[in-house]
Parts: sequence; C-alpha cells; structure tokens
Amino acid sequence: MLVAEGGKQFITVLEPSKQLQTHKGVLQHQDLIGQSWGTTIFSHTEHSFLLIQPSLRDILLHTKRQSQIIYPKEIGYILLRLSVGPGSRVVEGGTGSGALTTAFAWAVGSDGRVHSYDRREDMLELAHRNLERIGLTDRVDLNQLDVESGFQEKDIQALFLDLPHAHRYLYQAREAMADGGALGAILPTANQVSRFLSELENKRFSLPDVCEIMLRFYKPNPQRLRPMDRMVAHTGYLVFARAVRSPEND
Amino acid sequence: MLVAEGGKQFITVLEPSKQLQTHKGVLQHQDLIGQSWGTTIFSHTEHSFLLIQPSLRDILLHTKRQSQIIYPKEIGYILLRLSVGPGSRVVEGGTGSGALTTAFAWAVGSDGRVHSYDRREDMLELAHRNLERIGLTDRVDLNQLDVESGFQEKDIQALFLDLPHAHRYLYQAREAMADGGALGAILPTANQVSRFLSELENKRFSLPDVCEIMLRFYKPNPQRLRPMDRMVAHTGYLVFARAVRSPEND
Amino acid sequence: MLVAEGGKQFITVLEPSKQLQTHKGVLQHQDLIGQSWGTTIFSHTEHSFLLIQPSLRDILLHTKRQSQIIYPKEIGYILLRLSVGPGSRVVEGGTGSGALTTAFAWAVGSDGRVHSYDRREDMLELAHRNLERIGLTDRVDLNQLDVESGFQEKDIQALFLDLPHAHRYLYQAREAMADGGALGAILPTANQVSRFLSELENKRFSLPDVCEIMLRFYKPNPQRLRPMDRMVAHTGYLVFARAVRSPEND
Amino acid sequence: MLVAEGGKQFITVLEPSKQLQTHKGVLQHQDLIGQSWGTTIFSHTEHSFLLIQPSLRDILLHTKRQSQIIYPKEIGYILLRLSVGPGSRVVEGGTGSGALTTAFAWAVGSDGRVHSYDRREDMLELAHRNLERIGLTDRVDLNQLDVESGFQEKDIQALFLDLPHAHRYLYQAREAMADGGALGAILPTANQVSRFLSELENKRFSLPDVCEIMLRFYKPNPQRLRPMDRMVAHTGYLVFARAVRSPEND
Repeated sequence: MLVAEGGKQFITVLEPSKQLQTHKGVLQHQDLIGQSWGTTIFSHTEHSFLLIQPSLRDILLHTKRQSQIIYPKEIGYILLRLSVGPGSRVVEGGTGSGALTTAFAWAVGSDGRVHSYDRREDMLELAHRNLERIGLTDRVDLNQLDVESGFQEKDIQALFLDLPHAHRYLYQAREAMADGGALGAILPTANQVSRFLSELENKRFSLPDVCEIMLRFYKPNPQRLRPMDRMVAHTGYLVFARAVRSPEND
Repeated sequence: MLVAEGGKQFITVLEPSKQLQTHKGVLQHQDLIGQSWGTTIFSHTEHSFLLIQPSLRDILLHTKRQSQIIYPKEIGYILLRLSVGPGSRVVEGGTGSGALTTAFAWAVGSDGRVHSYDRREDMLELAHRNLERIGLTDRVDLNQLDVESGFQEKDIQALFLDLPHAHRYLYQAREAMADGGALGAILPTANQVSRFLSELENKRFSLPDVCEIMLRFYKPNPQRLRPMDRMVAHTGYLVFARAVRSPEND
Repeated sequence: MLVAEGGKQFITVLEPSKQLQTHKGVLQHQDLIGQSWGTTIFSHTEHSFLLIQPSLRDILLHTKRQSQIIYPKEIGYILLRLSVGPGSRVVEGGTGSGALTTAFAWAVGSDGRVHSYDRREDMLELAHRNLERIGLTDRVDLNQLDVESGFQEKDIQALFLDLPHAHRYLYQAREAMADGGALGAILPTANQVSRFLSELENKRFSLPDVCEIMLRFYKPNPQRLRPMDRMVAHTGYLVFARAVRSPEND
Repeated sequence: MLVAEGGKQFITVLEPSKQLQTHKGVLQHQDLIGQSWGTTIFSHTEHSFLLIQPSLRDILLHTKRQSQIIYPKEIGYILLRLSVGPGSRVVEGGTGSGALTTAFAWAVGSDGRVHSYDRREDMLELAHRNLERIGLTDRVDLNQLDVESGFQEKDIQALFLDLPHAHRYLYQAREAMADGGALGAILPTANQVSRFLSELENKRFSLPDVCEIMLRFYKPNPQRLRPMDRMVAHTGYLVFARAVRSPEND
C-alpha cells in the first residue's frame, strides 16, 4: 500500500514492468520492489508516498465492489459475536463483493473453512478476485447456489446472512446450524428487522439481539482536536440470535 | 453459559458437586453436564434457563474486572486495525483485567503469541485467572514490568497501549515495532488524545487516526422495534498509527 | 432553583413558612426570599447551594410526570420546525404531562395561544399544575376531548401529535390546519413511523421528514475532558410534514 | 419557498417582473403571486413545485453564509438553555452570517431585543441582509465592535459567544450579565472547550455544562424505513454556564 500526502491510499500487487499512476505523479513498481515497509518514496513529480503494509481494515475498505459492502466497524463486531477465529467453520449466505468473506477467511486461519453462497456468478467472480488478491482463495468454498435450496453444511457454529429477504431463509440457516450455534445478519431497513425478528421466533432461534454501530473519526490535529464534519450514518442493522433445540414459545 | 428469562447470563465451569445459585432458583451442575447446547433447563423454582456456549463477546463482557475494560465494540475493530489474526505476535502495554488480552490470545490461535505487560501483580493475577477460565494461558506471556523500561520484543507488527500516560511510552513502543507495524491505543480523555498525537509526530510514527465507536441496541420486539432507552456514551477514544522509518517532518 | 454541590437541582416556589429538605441538609424558605440570583446559600449542615433562576430547559426537565415526556433536545428543534414563536397559535394532540405544552406556551408569548387536547382528566390536571407553577395557564386551552372527534380550531399553522396511534388522527389534524401548515409528531417505534408515513401520503400532507436527535454530555473537567459514561439512546422518532392542497400523488 | 420534486428548496421574495431559474425549468414570479400556500405549481418544463411558507428552520438553513453557521439542531436547544423567548434581551458575541441572530430576533418577538457584535463589516452587512430578507432588522442592534473592548449592555440574562478564542472574552461577558444569567458558547475543538472551562472557573461563572447534539435523518419511505447514508458528524461543542456572584472556589 502507498499512502499519498493527504491520505489517499493505493493498494496494488507489485510487478516489475508496471507503473502506478496517481494524482500526485507516477511511481515505477520496479523502484518499490525490495524497499522496506515504512519507507517514504517519491513520485516523478517529487510528491512523497509512504510504503506500508495494508492492515486487514485497509484491505476490506479497498474491496472491489459491485454492491454495498459491510464496513470494518461491523465486521470486527461480527467476528466476536459469532466467535469466528482460528479453526472455525463459517457459512455465509450472500457472498456479494466478498468483503466479509475475506475477513472470515483471514480470521479462520489455514485450519478453518468458509462456505459462501451466492446465486449470481458475477458476484462470485468478483469475490474470487478479491480473495485472490490477498491469497485466501484456498480457505473458501464459493457456491453458486440459491440459498432457498438450502446450505450443504451441517453442525455449523457460525452462520451469517447478507441477502435480500434474509428472513425467508431462516429455516435453511437453522438446518445447517449446530444446536447453540450463533446466527448473524445485516439488514438495511427497520421493516426488514421487524420481519426477521418475527420469523426468528418460529424457527428454533432464541436470544435475539438488534444493534447498530456508529464510527466517528476525528481530525488528528493535537492543537485542534475535533470530529470530522461528516460521517457514515448507516450501513445496516445487525441482528444476532442463537440456535436452540425447541422454539422459544414451546 | 446459562441465560435466564429476561436475559441475565451466568458463565461458569461445570463441576459435578457444585450448584449455581441465581435470582430465579438453583441449578445443580450435575444436571447440566452432558446436556446439549441450545437446551432449555429448569431451576428448582421451575424457571427456564437456556444452556448455550458463550460467544467470545459474552466471555469478554464477563471478564472479572478491577479496572475499566475495553468493550467488544472496540475490540473487534482493534483486531482489524492491527491485523491481529492466526499466527500474529502482539504486544500489549497495560494488561489490566485482561479482556483485550483474552481477545488477542483467542485471535492469534495456537501458532501466535501475546506479550502483555503490567507493573501491578494483582492485575496480572486477575488477567491470568480470566485467561485460565477459557484455556488460553499458554498463548500469553504476562510480564510484571513497567513499560517505561521498554518491551523485550523486537519486530512486532501489532502493539496496543492501554495505560495511564500512554503518550510517555511511544519511544519504547517504537523500539519494539517493525517498520510499518501498526500501533493502537485507547485513551479516556480528549486531552490525552492531544498529547498522544503530539508525541506521535516525533517518534517515527505516521498516518495517525482517531475515532470513537458507538453501539446502540434495540428492543428486539418485531411489532415495537425501537432503540433501548439508554446506551454507553463513552469507553474511550481509539488512536491508531503506523511505524515509519523516519519522522513525519524529516 | 437551588443547585447542590454535585449538581442536584431543586425547583420550588418560595413560601415564608416552608422549608426545603434535601440530602445535603435543610434550607428555610424565609432565608432565601429576597436573595439575589447567583448567590451561594448554606444549609443547616453547612453544605452550599447555588440560588439560580431555572432556565426553560431546567423547568421542562422538572416537569412532574405520569408519562414519558419529550426532552429539551427535541423540544427546541420542534419549535424551529413548526415555527412556533411570539403570537403563534398551536394545536397539540396529546397533552400528557404538559412538558411540550409548557414550551409552546412560553414560546408563543402573551399574544399567542396553545390549544391542547387529551381525553384523560388526570393528565390535564397534571399539565395544569405544571403550567400553573410557572404562570402560563392563561395562554393554554386544555380540552378534555378525544382527538378522534376532531379539533375545534381551523387554519392552524402548527400542529403537533404526541399520542398513541397518532397515524389514526391525520384526517382530524389536516382539517384543523391551514394550507401549508406544519405538522409534527413524536413516535416511539419504527413500526409506528412506517404506519404514520403511509397514512400521510393519503391525507393531503407532503414533504415528510423523519429524524432522531441524540444529545451527549461531557464531564466538564478542563484537564480531563471526556463524554459522560452513559446517555439517553432514544426518546422517540420525530416526523414532520407540511399540509398541502391536494394529495401527493394526485 | 418552492420545493422541487426530489426536495430541493428555493426561498425567494416574489417580485412581479422576475423569474426563478431552476434545474427543473423556469417559473415566473408573476404566476406565483396570489397563489395559496400548499399549492402545486408547474415550471415551463412541466416539473412540479410545491409552494410553501419556509419554516424558521428552512430560513436558517438558507442563511447566506461566508462562515460556518450554527445548525437548527443546536439553535433550538440554545433557545431553551438560555431561556430566550418573547420579550428577552439577548447579547451575541460574534454575529457571523447571522443565522443564530435571526433565530434570536424571531424568538424575542417585537418586545425583545438582540444586541450582536462583530468586528468585521462584511459579516455585519451579510447578517443585515439575512435579517432584512425576513423583516427582523428592527429587533436587532448590529455593532461593529471588537468584543475585547466589552459589551455596552448590562444586566443581560442571556449571552452567547460564537467567536474565535471565545475564552478570552469571559470577563467582558460576565460584566454585561446579570447575576444568575445564562451564558452559552459554541466551540469547534476539544482544546478550546478545555481552555474555555479553565477560564470559566475564575470569572464568576458556575454550573458548567458541555454537550454535543447529533441529528440523524431517515429516508421517509414507509416500506423501507432506514437512516440516510451520511450525516453531519460535528458542528461544534456547546458549553453553557450560569453567572454567579462569587467565583466557584471562593
């Protein structure tokens, strides 16, 4: 990753014959290869760039996208709510551009596995390219299947839904899950949250929990510390629940 | 974990001869051992409890504490900002009650390592007990040392400070870090953020970033969806930066 | 108003023979009468109290209540959205404890008029006492009537609804309003907002607008400036619209 | 005010020979004069516009500006904190573009008075034009004076500062204020809040209070209710205090 003065970031894979064109001049990949992390590099117009490894958050924010992506502020919290860590098996309904898929693949490590479903081929191809970029394709199964026909896995401890009409697939989700497993979903509207909660009650889920996360950045000026002028007001409502052996009102 | 009607949670390690006393009656550990996750259990007063595995977030919220702990909403985001995942080596200045230590230990897996420092013996003992509870002690070095005298590690990619006067230890932090490594800190007051940012500029760090995370829960009633009446307004300001080879204004 | 060390406020009307009992000792009303505003007074236990005129905000927060009241953060914004000022005529559906009624009465001045409706006698009596406390009863008509049977006023420029099932009374509201008048409502749940917006479309209203206001306080310590630990997360969703001559989709 | 489809607002004073040019076609002022509020009007390209009286909030948001203005979300709350209503005398240090001046002038009615100070002639001229537009100039004194040399008024109950280095003028503010009067200020940075609070302690002020107000809008779609994507993250910190007869730590 190269960070220009002013903060604009460029994430790229270096190849000897290529060059990086920016609003602050051109950089030859050849000149970057072998440089240490944390070094300052200059473009042909003498603008400085900082060469730095992208954090997982940087990579997630630079996911190439054809759809709304989930932000790092939500993703970090989802990992903790679904206990996704080294060795986990995770199922994802709705691959989309693959930002959350990438985070899951990174968190489960080489012993874990991510099973992701989307019915759109173009989305799966995009997600594949996003995963390939950071070398995580071999931890992920990308399935071109409609979630309506069910997931192929069983006894899953962590399952996440990021789909239109997510409330329609709670039966399929429950069938794939172990007793006690953790379910999560992101839903854009309050109406969808209501429908999702209604369906949860009848589908052997319990402990429903709804929240939203707001992240506010500050201008990092020590003499003039103040929040940025504008912020993201909404990405989605997060809903979590736990799989139980019998319906809530049994 | 047992969840009572109304949502109160009890996390405990089961031992045959013990019993769990709650506001909704008594449960014999003996009766719980061998039960499936997701099962409903009844106390001697016929109140129902749900037997469920605690998520990492549940465990973190139940950290036994003698000090303010960092909340899951911040911890998830810190993992992504510092790229802490399977195999990572992480240094933590300020063990405290060990909530963040636990999350780091969980995220780095059996191939990773967490080096945590605190000068208070009582804190380290508490953190040890909290780690022991979930079997993660063997991934963590707890060092009873004042951070002022420096960290013992070198070439660290991820270092987090949760200490009074954190701005005083930036030299020590930088010495332990690899070029390009990621630094994070949590600071309770705006004044401390200003001081921290001022020090960063002179200590071979760049790309400073300040933010705060707000989490708002909703009452999960599908017919009456609305936010809870009250919420946490502040745990701390998060500051992040990257280690660079030369000072920002070189 | 007397403010104790620590910030606790006591608002009372002084009468020579009375005394004020507090957690920090007793004060004789007789000793307070004639004292200047801004003076420090001592209780019999030598605790200091600041004698100060309550602001409108202080009075509103001390409204004696039998129901949820609207907070000053919302009330100030409502005044601006409904253009309620000197000389205004305002109609309120749902008097409740009378906090908003008080703010309206105060803002319209001696040339304005507030017409407030509630079907519950006990609420109207409580609101009357709250208004009497600050001498504003003569600007307010309190009507013990069900809003379902309609408002008695016509050509009203500003009308506010704070009622259960507010969406049922939009026809009655529109009948009382002038073309172009401003409507406001506070609704506790997202489901009610959806219903209210659906009804608005068919009732000669346009320019619907939904928002929520969050107010976060800080500990006013110059060396340790930081937000309070907790805050109000929700009082209600505010909905505004304008009365138009023909339905939106005519 | 004319509101186009999509919500864009045009506030103008009608003159027979003029026309309003918009992105959705041209409207002749002549055709608008005499029309009822709440009427739908069509441009020469057949786009519809709603003719509606601007609310005070609409007027404030359309203040012609050369400087950052205070938003309605803050202004409404300031009115309640300073008890500015019919008949009030208010002093304002820092006229700026005159948005808050306009709100004060509107709220105090024809019996009240607003005394506003700015050392910049261009700002006062701009504020004058903004006040003229809605006919409120005769309630406002605009003084081209540096606040450092003091305010000309005495015994003021409500005084507001919106000035660079506001903490330098607390002595002058206190001199103009009555015992028990209410002071307010808006400050852009946390550092300024700290300095302001430090100065307050020594200048016969007490009961300091710091807060910030966040306003989040929703897309008013009843079937797809959700917050807007982005929002204002910061306009300023609000600080309030009360004038007392002797310093806090006397």
